[in-house]
Amino acid sequence: MKALACLAVAATMFTMAAPAAAQFAKPEDAIKYRQSALTVMAAHFGRVGAMANGRVPFDAKVAAENADIVADMAKLPWAGFMAGSDKGNTKAKPEIWTEQAKFKEHSDKLVAESTKLAAAAKTGNLDNLKTAFAATAGTCKACHDAYRKE
Amino acid sequence: MKALACLAVAATMFTMAAPAAAQFAKPEDAIKYRQSALTVMAAHFGRVGAMANGRVPFDAKVAAENADIVADMAKLPWAGFMAGSDKGNTKAKPEIWTEQAKFKEHSDKLVAESTKLAAAAKTGNLDNLKTAFAATAGTCKACHDAYRKE
Repeated sequence: MKALACLAVAATMFTMAAPAAAQFAKPEDAIKYRQSALTVMAAHFGRVGAMANGRVPFDAKVAAENADIVADMAKLPWAGFMAGSDKGNTKAKPEIWTEQAKFKEHSDKLVAESTKLAAAAKTGNLDNLKTAFAATAGTCKACHDAYRKE
Repeated sequence: MKALACLAVAATMFTMAAPAAAQFAKPEDAIKYRQSALTVMAAHFGRVGAMANGRVPFDAKVAAENADIVADMAKLPWAGFMAGSDKGNTKAKPEIWTEQAKFKEHSDKLVAESTKLAAAAKTGNLDNLKTAFAATAGTCKACHDAYRKE
């Protein structure tokens, strides 16, 4: 029974892993995907930041639109850090693949803070936006400091 | 009064144009942004297509998730076709900037068809997905044929 149970678990794990594994045919596709998702996110995050930092006038509607895109994009890049994509055209440190739980903590924090950012933007209050922007930017920096090469 | 009215119109146009113009500091940033948005969209569209074409088993939940991302991403690349971004690391044909209305028709069609694709995916019916996938893919091809260099 124990062997059968193990087989059942293994079969389940394979099924669960299959969609993710099938997402990118080659590591370079995964690298390009994650970099692209981060580029799009950064562009929209930059527009929110320009308002939070007073470089452009605060426009609540524009801030909310851009923050929503940031929150959506924040969920995407991580599937691109597939096994074998530590080499190639990437600044990703190898520790990402040896410290998967810690790396996931970082990405989860970005997802959580960017969700708060989108909610803060919807309040139409610039101070709320500034606070949430700073918290979100902090998650970018923490992860880059730990897991991105210079 | 006519001169004043003209000035007022010009001032309004400047205000309206400002956010778009401020989105990218340099044409190369706009090019990188639009290519990134298209790369992310293509990755998720490919996953829907793999199911529509029977290369991977149909999973209604996965199809719906990916189609939603496609519909969101479909709105983004077009802001990246800013004036002056016809040169550089791009396959975009110069006609994009001389046929702006026609180009917008193409991008509007993609937005409309990908919205239908997301709705079709939510029905959980593979035939609906196939039909909507083919229609969406048709908008990609039509625009690439007209406006992308080989």
